Amino acid sequence: MPDSPTRSEPRDDDATIGAIGEIAALRRILPRLESGASALLGPGDDAALVAASDGRFVVTTDLLVHGPDFRLAWSTPFELGWKAAATNLTDVAAMGARPTALVVAIAAPPSAPASLLEGIADGLREALRALAPGAGVVGGDLSASDVLTIAVTAFGDLEGRAPVRRSGARIGDVIAHAGARGDAARGLALLFAEATDAAGEPSATLAAELRARHPDLLRAQLAPSPPVAAGVVAALAGATSMLDVSDGLARDARRVAESSGVALDFSSSALGSDPETVRVALAGGEDHGFLATFPDDAAVPDPFEVIGRVVAGDGEVLLDGLDVGADGWDPYAGWDGRSG
Amino acid sequence: MPDSPTRSEPRDDDATIGAIGEIAALRRILPRLESGASALLGPGDDAALVAASDGRFVVTTDLLVHGPDFRLAWSTPFELGWKAAATNLTDVAAMGARPTALVVAIAAPPSAPASLLEGIADGLREALRALAPGAGVVGGDLSASDVLTIAVTAFGDLEGRAPVRRSGARIGDVIAHAGARGDAARGLALLFAEATDAAGEPSATLAAELRARHPDLLRAQLAPSPPVAAGVVAALAGATSMLDVSDGLARDARRVAESSGVALDFSSSALGSDPETVRVALAGGEDHGFLATFPDDAAVPDPFEVIGRVVAGDGEVLLDGLDVGADGWDPYAGWDGRSG
Repeated sequence: MPDSPTRSEPRDDDATIGAIGEIAALRRILPRLESGASALLGPGDDAALVAASDGRFVVTTDLLVHGPDFRLAWSTPFELGWKAAATNLTDVAAMGARPTALVVAIAAPPSAPASLLEGIADGLREALRALAPGAGVVGGDLSASDVLTIAVTAFGDLEGRAPVRRSGARIGDVIAHAGARGDAARGLALLFAEATDAAGEPSATLAAELRARHPDLLRAQLAPSPPVAAGVVAALAGATSMLDVSDGLARDARRVAESSGVALDFSSSALGSDPETVRVALAGGEDHGFLATFPDDAAVPDPFEVIGRVVAGDGEVLLDGLDVGADGWDPYAGWDGRSG
Repeated sequence: MPDSPTRSEPRDDDATIGAIGEIAALRRILPRLESGASALLGPGDDAALVAASDGRFVVTTDLLVHGPDFRLAWSTPFELGWKAAATNLTDVAAMGARPTALVVAIAAPPSAPASLLEGIADGLREALRALAPGAGVVGGDLSASDVLTIAVTAFGDLEGRAPVRRSGARIGDVIAHAGARGDAARGLALLFAEATDAAGEPSATLAAELRARHPDLLRAQLAPSPPVAAGVVAALAGATSMLDVSDGLARDARRVAESSGVALDFSSSALGSDPETVRVALAGGEDHGFLATFPDDAAVPDPFEVIGRVVAGDGEVLLDGLDVGADGWDPYAGWDGRSG
């Protein structure tokens, strides 16, 4: 879990990024980062050099944009860095790979305090230490933009294993899940319900009060701690398919079902003891747990829980045998233009 | 050189990105891209898988932001994609690596036409075909933002060679350069002087007229064709140091001189026949040629030209033995807030 992700207060001497310039800003960020065990050459040249022990590397990239993806009134810079790392690490791990390194490009307003960048760097470093020990930040870029934007590209090593794809689920496999189900969505719903002012704008004051009352749900949304190491565990245990659950269990399960040419049948009793819990488990996005399938005769490893079975079908997602709608999240559908 | 980078006119049926959503937008982009010979798994799963033949990979990342880095009144979407690829390919090649793959994340306004994304994809594809045959786009991400932002991460293969760093220049080495010197800066100066309206705003109409009069200089700025293959050529010829000249020859030469603990002495007669040509060659940014040093007894390979010699010193850049100031480009210093 995040290590005291308290809001960074601007210091009296905290110059803006624009005033100190790119070079000085980089000098304040780089000492806060670690390049990790796989970095053969870290930051400082035209490009970095990273070890890829089995002659291949896994790569994923993701953008976090102020407005649709986060609100500065709700997230601390530390939490932004943490979440940017965490969400990319799970994409690498969902292939069955061990995360090795990140590169990070940040576009920030020249008027922002340099402590914003320091907070993001601290969050990146601590998330890597906590979720993927040994992995580090091997390179990056700093640009100017009116909209704070964090672009992370993450790398992983399959260590000779075959990648675990979303297309490998087979009829008769058990469906298993590792990580939170619905907590990130509950945290976001709380923020929208109780941390916006009368005009609907995100409020830092209300968010701080809410954080005191619901620390775990807000942390699940703002600085999640998905079980990254479970990705390799699943691969070693023979997972036939796996993906990172970012858009909600129902919507991501449909991707596995469609890619694999099967149906995924969830057990409501495994997902929760009441209908609302089951609904949020299926619909809630941004938990970044792992949805995997295992052969019927495989031992499903910790921390995975069995939540259903793969059955014959053509891309359907079922709950106790009945078709459920795919609910999820589209960055263009979900953004009302507010930045917060 | 770019293949007819004409401005994409919105079609009557051209829906906005926000109206069609992320999934449909991706369906319009992906068929326009090629994942290349090194892609073991391309787009479609949580992450891609790329070959790294010698057990290492070179990686660089860069953000292009509407406003400080480009103006939509001046650049076509095709040119944006082209330049995003070209500038990252040179960073990979400047390590002496063969470019193998890119991942690309784009944040675009929901109100933008989907043809904007198609144009960027076409530019990426054609730049890869022209500058780094065999390399492709193996993955990406699409987000919403008020500010069009293109994040490219590029990969390369050293094929068993040692990386060519900026710190390896030795006293007595010859200094050589491959690529344009000052053309991109000349193109940008023309755009600022002749393609802004009375209020100082970038003008698409004036840019089109200017493009007809100065096609080569505008192309050098908006869709440059740096000699990417020269990076591997230099490495094979024994280059002792190398970097991509993005911020101007003087400023980037200072990086080599400081990293290597030497001074770089340029010959004015090699840089141009008149003082203004020499000044622009030293100061002009964004050419993305290669500055390399070679042992005195090495044969300097085509397309490199000898432009000076490494001498004793402590980070200085000299012209005919006299210290010159380091002139260059800082994204925070250079942006006046206009987007165009």
